[in-house]
Amino acid sequence: KSDSYLNIEEFRIVAERKLPRMVYDYYASGSDNQITLGENVNFYSRIKLTPRCLVDVSNINTKTSVFGIPLSFPVMIAPTAMQKMAHPNGEIDTCLAARDMGTLMTLSSLATTSVEDLGKASGGNPGWFQLYVFKDRSISEKLVKRAEMAGFKAILLTIDTPFLGRRESDYRNEFSLPTGLQLRNFTDLPLADIQGGLNKYMATMIDSSLTWNDLAWLKSITKLPVIVKGVMCPQDALLAVKYGADGIIVSNHGARQLDTSPSTIEVLPYVVRAVGGRIPVIVDGGVRRGTDILKALAYGACAVMIGRPVLWGLAADGYDGVLKVLQLLRDELVLSMALAGVNSISKIDESLIWSSPNSLPRPKL
Amino acid sequence: KSDSYLNIEEFRIVAERKLPRMVYDYYASGSDNQITLGENVNFYSRIKLTPRCLVDVSNINTKTSVFGIPLSFPVMIAPTAMQKMAHPNGEIDTCLAARDMGTLMTLSSLATTSVEDLGKASGGNPGWFQLYVFKDRSISEKLVKRAEMAGFKAILLTIDTPFLGRRESDYRNEFSLPTGLQLRNFTDLPLADIQGGLNKYMATMIDSSLTWNDLAWLKSITKLPVIVKGVMCPQDALLAVKYGADGIIVSNHGARQLDTSPSTIEVLPYVVRAVGGRIPVIVDGGVRRGTDILKALAYGACAVMIGRPVLWGLAADGYDGVLKVLQLLRDELVLSMALAGVNSISKIDESLIWSSPNSLPRPKL
Amino acid sequence: KSDSYLNIEEFRIVAERKLPRMVYDYYASGSDNQITLGENVNFYSRIKLTPRCLVDVSNINTKTSVFGIPLSFPVMIAPTAMQKMAHPNGEIDTCLAARDMGTLMTLSSLATTSVEDLGKASGGNPGWFQLYVFKDRSISEKLVKRAEMAGFKAILLTIDTPFLGRRESDYRNEFSLPTGLQLRNFTDLPLADIQGGLNKYMATMIDSSLTWNDLAWLKSITKLPVIVKGVMCPQDALLAVKYGADGIIVSNHGARQLDTSPSTIEVLPYVVRAVGGRIPVIVDGGVRRGTDILKALAYGACAVMIGRPVLWGLAADGYDGVLKVLQLLRDELVLSMALAGVNSISKIDESLIWSSPNSLPRPKL
Amino acid sequence: KSDSYLNIEEFRIVAERKLPRMVYDYYASGSDNQITLGENVNFYSRIKLTPRCLVDVSNINTKTSVFGIPLSFPVMIAPTAMQKMAHPNGEIDTCLAARDMGTLMTLSSLATTSVEDLGKASGGNPGWFQLYVFKDRSISEKLVKRAEMAGFKAILLTIDTPFLGRRESDYRNEFSLPTGLQLRNFTDLPLADIQGGLNKYMATMIDSSLTWNDLAWLKSITKLPVIVKGVMCPQDALLAVKYGADGIIVSNHGARQLDTSPSTIEVLPYVVRAVGGRIPVIVDGGVRRGTDILKALAYGACAVMIGRPVLWGLAADGYDGVLKVLQLLRDELVLSMALAGVNSISKIDESLIWSSPNSLPRPKL
Ligand SMILES: Cc1cc2nc3c(=O)[nH]c(=O)nc-3n(C[C@H](O)[C@H](O)[C@H](O)COP(=O)(O)O)c2cc1C
Ligand SMILES: Cc1cc2nc3c(=O)[nH]c(=O)nc-3n(C[C@H](O)[C@H](O)[C@H](O)COP(=O)(O)O)c2cc1C
Ligand SMILES: Cc1cc2nc3c(=O)[nH]c(=O)nc-3n(C[C@H](O)[C@H](O)[C@H](O)COP(=O)(O)O)c2cc1C
Ligand SMILES: Cc1cc2nc3c(=O)[nH]c(=O)nc-3n(C[C@H](O)[C@H](O)[C@H](O)COP(=O)(O)O)c2cc1C
Repeated sequence: KSDSYLNIEEFRIVAERKLPRMVYDYYASGSDNQITLGENVNFYSRIKLTPRCLVDVSNINTKTSVFGIPLSFPVMIAPTAMQKMAHPNGEIDTCLAARDMGTLMTLSSLATTSVEDLGKASGGNPGWFQLYVFKDRSISEKLVKRAEMAGFKAILLTIDTPFLGRRESDYRNEFSLPTGLQLRNFTDLPLADIQGGLNKYMATMIDSSLTWNDLAWLKSITKLPVIVKGVMCPQDALLAVKYGADGIIVSNHGARQLDTSPSTIEVLPYVVRAVGGRIPVIVDGGVRRGTDILKALAYGACAVMIGRPVLWGLAADGYDGVLKVLQLLRDELVLSMALAGVNSISKIDESLIWSSPNSLPRPKL
Repeated sequence: KSDSYLNIEEFRIVAERKLPRMVYDYYASGSDNQITLGENVNFYSRIKLTPRCLVDVSNINTKTSVFGIPLSFPVMIAPTAMQKMAHPNGEIDTCLAARDMGTLMTLSSLATTSVEDLGKASGGNPGWFQLYVFKDRSISEKLVKRAEMAGFKAILLTIDTPFLGRRESDYRNEFSLPTGLQLRNFTDLPLADIQGGLNKYMATMIDSSLTWNDLAWLKSITKLPVIVKGVMCPQDALLAVKYGADGIIVSNHGARQLDTSPSTIEVLPYVVRAVGGRIPVIVDGGVRRGTDILKALAYGACAVMIGRPVLWGLAADGYDGVLKVLQLLRDELVLSMALAGVNSISKIDESLIWSSPNSLPRPKL
Repeated sequence: KSDSYLNIEEFRIVAERKLPRMVYDYYASGSDNQITLGENVNFYSRIKLTPRCLVDVSNINTKTSVFGIPLSFPVMIAPTAMQKMAHPNGEIDTCLAARDMGTLMTLSSLATTSVEDLGKASGGNPGWFQLYVFKDRSISEKLVKRAEMAGFKAILLTIDTPFLGRRESDYRNEFSLPTGLQLRNFTDLPLADIQGGLNKYMATMIDSSLTWNDLAWLKSITKLPVIVKGVMCPQDALLAVKYGADGIIVSNHGARQLDTSPSTIEVLPYVVRAVGGRIPVIVDGGVRRGTDILKALAYGACAVMIGRPVLWGLAADGYDGVLKVLQLLRDELVLSMALAGVNSISKIDESLIWSSPNSLPRPKL
Repeated sequence: KSDSYLNIEEFRIVAERKLPRMVYDYYASGSDNQITLGENVNFYSRIKLTPRCLVDVSNINTKTSVFGIPLSFPVMIAPTAMQKMAHPNGEIDTCLAARDMGTLMTLSSLATTSVEDLGKASGGNPGWFQLYVFKDRSISEKLVKRAEMAGFKAILLTIDTPFLGRRESDYRNEFSLPTGLQLRNFTDLPLADIQGGLNKYMATMIDSSLTWNDLAWLKSITKLPVIVKGVMCPQDALLAVKYGADGIIVSNHGARQLDTSPSTIEVLPYVVRAVGGRIPVIVDGGVRRGTDILKALAYGACAVMIGRPVLWGLAADGYDGVLKVLQLLRDELVLSMALAGVNSISKIDESLIWSSPNSLPRPKL
């Protein structure tokens, strides 16, 4: 069925039809006026690519690697909470589809599948793990250990969520976990259920006093690489490098946190310039087309992550849906590379970006 | 009831439903083509904020003070005429709600509650008073004295209204005060009623020959600080400083005077730069979100004022509505500060404003 | 009746309702895709005015003079062809309303009233006369003489119409003069009727080989000042000065000639700069509000002309309609001047234009 | 019938009504989100022309020549595949209409008429021939020879199609050649029919390993001038010159290849500057109005090509439709030249382009 969908937008439409309003809204919404939500996608559309011609593109190679992990193409799956609301198999289907496409998934701290279950289901290779630091540090510490044990290969520390952004539809819909579902990483804790809304939950549980020093703490308790997720300016990128982050994800949390923050692709080039190649930079937010991936890489990202597209795939068709979403993006990337005249990832650079002057040449007066 | 409204826009919708067309239009309209009316709000939306991460935001302090008056958060209430059209308690409810939220209201010269009544209702602490200078100077002089007596703490001299702007719906609706209501500061004068429309009233009564020298006159008759309201360019800001104003409000009168004048947030940074810290600068016009407040402060305002949002709150639910409107903005401000990585008002500065170059980096040709 | 219309747009709506489609379309249309038609109006809306405060505006004086002719306010009436299609009294009503408002009308060569009839109706003071140069020079020469005799005070030479622009609706409607009407300046010639459409008429009759040298010829046959109408770039403005024009009208013929030419207000400042005060510069096209007039004067025009607004007034209510249209614009101008803080025409200058930098101040990175 | 259509857009509307959805979509679509498709047209609309006045335009001469071939006006017909889907006479009608209008057509490799048949129908003067290079080089080589024999005067090597762009409607409609039609240049080969969609066809047949060196090969097997079609940046323009191309067509294949590539008119001036007059530059994509042609020539193109407008003409009315489309554009060009004040092609230059500064002059603060 999902074989007939021609693009990510068609998956979204199917998901909107299939999912209960409360769930769809939770997945789709941005914060406040959703200005950044629109910009995450639209800014990509306004960036223009220069097609180069008569390059041998009979062999397009999309292989790359991030932190030594080989990827068949530079698209990974961003952590999104509570995937079982989209499909009974939730995070497990996502994880397996990612693996079968030669890439990887990041499991959210707020997943409806536990790190252990995903570890098992994936044969000990479940991908990356996203961490929220709780007020009770021991919870996070244990979670990191459990993730290591389960075979996760990196920790993504989300730094943009001292509190949850205000997504108004969640208030309108009085969002809560559908019966039967739980935040499975915390089944032994009151944390497993969401009392009185997700915002209150996060405000109560999450440590909003976290600072860059705590990055040192996190690094001290794990051997895994620690990637900070949520950097949105060159200044924070420099701090990330300074405090020992192993990688950076330029992200505005899918436009769910501070509204009217810039789109991520707008910020990426400045972060890349600040980092100067010292650590890898990934970007997420608004990636919906192969050309978007090409643009992000042209601006210096080593890979992109996708959040909602995977949820739409999962809602539409479980494992098959996620697989198709990834295939679509890979195929679009391959074609974009061919038409742009680059046949391997390492050849993608900023010269692919077309930039006309603001005004056309003027007559001499 | 108003507890369920999620944002200022929802309050506006309720107010539009509840109020008679004539009253709603009077409150909502801007002048002529209402171009500035749109821009006051939209310009805010186009300003982008840079979120900073891993700052300890477990304790957000929104306290500040203006002219030595402590405010629990930097949002005050702008003077708006004839509030009893929105709710029987009118200005009194607004004033009390403001006080109970730790901030203050400005009473309009054209209020439907007298300075004395508001003084009494507020236990002698009614906030600030907005002054129009009448052709008959003795009226204004008496009004200032009465305001002092009633406990007002500052005089706002509105300088942008030598004549009233043309709000076309007021002509269409033949706007007049609903029966039973009066301009209560003038009950002993023919000024208490509006004959033949507000524009004619103002043209007849207001002194359109006022100049900067009259600021000296006003200062000579009162000990209260005098704040000029309606500055819209650096040149007038410098004149305000020169002629002894104690503060400046960057305002275009809620886009009700000269249409196609700039939005206020667009003008603010240039006024702030011109003033150079010599006197405080406040801004009003179009503030509808916590992020708007953050932006105004980032550009150098010490506080913002809100006009229409309060009228919508008052129309929706009287005292409770105004309270909720203020709470909403305070809560949104707190969350914005947390997500932007600033935990106190004094730490807000222009570095919070994201500004990408107009064009993205170009390929070398 | 027309007393109740609040702005020019309301007059247009009434005219659209009253006029036969063919006539309304002829009046309203621009050429091709009508891109310039929109821009003529919209460019004004995007220019921002800086309101100045605390200037004595109790006495606003809109008096000015052009070529020694006193005007009660700086708005004249542009030549528009065939006004009797709008109202039986046509050009005569327009002329008298203009005179009674203290300004003047320009009669089109293609009028439905002859120069003689208008001369008589106006008591020998019919205003200005617009000239098209015909292939048969003797026709134009006679026309100029007849205009002088009838009391016209200046000749406007339209230079932007070697051929008529393509207004597609005139083709669709197979536009022709309604029965009973004639081009009354040519009753003794086959020129009085329009055969096979206006475009063919003009192509057959008008001299498209006219050059700047012919301006010398025109000046040699008349003592009246000659004003060239249709200048749209600084280069042609310099040529106009060089070849002895007594004045310039920046005009794109109401967007009826070359589509995608700039709006006139966009071009005005460059023409003014090139002319450097040597001869007066007038502008027409898209003036619909008092603030538009203020902007044109701020950019250096000595007056503006209006075309369609007069046709809407005429269609709505004949003499009274034109009068009201002029009053509306004058009243809006007076109010705009008051709110902008200028009390006489001579004080209007470019400092009234607000111009913010493209991007707001940036954080130091 | 097609005599009554007033502009290209009206032809498009008729074609949309007459053609089967599958065919119309194939003709009309761009790739992916069709962003470039819109920009190809819209960028023209945003370029402004400066009308020059009082130039003798009684004689407008649109004659020009390209590669020594005289053209009655600088509009040629771009190669578009499979024209018999629009009209039974297909490429032959197009070719004859072009010739009768004093210009020429380019035959697509993927035509539904063979080079030989077109050669015959045109009396040995069929225009230009567009070449796709097939994996099996001998096919292309033979095709070039056959084109020479049939009387074609130049080879257009399309360089932007190593693979076909993704036009989603072709997937939705499961596009295939209607029964009875064939790719007539390959009747002796399996290439004559499209198996499993055009994208798969092209991927299987076309040589995506082509490089600039192959241009040398192509030149070695023909005496005809070789023009590269699909240059979209100055860099590739320089390579084209270097590798011996006789001409360049700035083209994005009607926005059917890499989506979000720039519009062609946006790229043209940079290519022209890079080429510096060494070889002629043609542009296609989005030309719909006489003013568009004027703009392209002002930016340095020696001629433009049109693709879809011809298909709409063909669908509407066969030979007559194509003729009328060409006439319309020629007439619009003539009028535009007259109104812009240029009477011959050689006088068109960049000074015709109006370019206002981004911001209007500023007040001194
Ligand atoms: C429904 C949803 C849930 C999310 N949950 C988390 C989460 O638990 N942790 C996290 O770091 N990011 C979370 N994110 C942010 C994503 O990791 C990612 O930054 C974002 O979705 C990328 O934007 P896109 O959805 O436009 O691709 C979530 C996003 C969505 C849409
Ligand atoms: C209905 C209404 C009445 C107003 N009356 C006054 C007034 O009497 N005096 C005054 O100085 N400003 C008056 N204002 C302007 C406000 O003080 C303030 O500048 C403006 O409302 C701020 O814009 P906002 O409504 O977008 O928040 C009025 C505004 C409105 C909307
Ligand atoms: C219906 C109509 C007829 C016109 N006829 C003439 C004319 O005969 N001669 C001329 O020089 N300009 C003519 N113009 C142009 C006007 O003089 C003037 O430049 C234009 O209308 C100004 O733009 P506006 O209509 O937006 O005010 C005509 C314009 C219109 C709309
Ligand atoms: C239906 C269609 C088929 C086309 N086929 C070919 C082709 O076979 N070879 C080629 O080089 N270009 C082809 N093109 C591109 C055209 O040559 C030309 O670049 C484009 O149509 C110009 O844009 P326009 O349609 O906006 O005028 C095709 C375009 C269309 C719309």
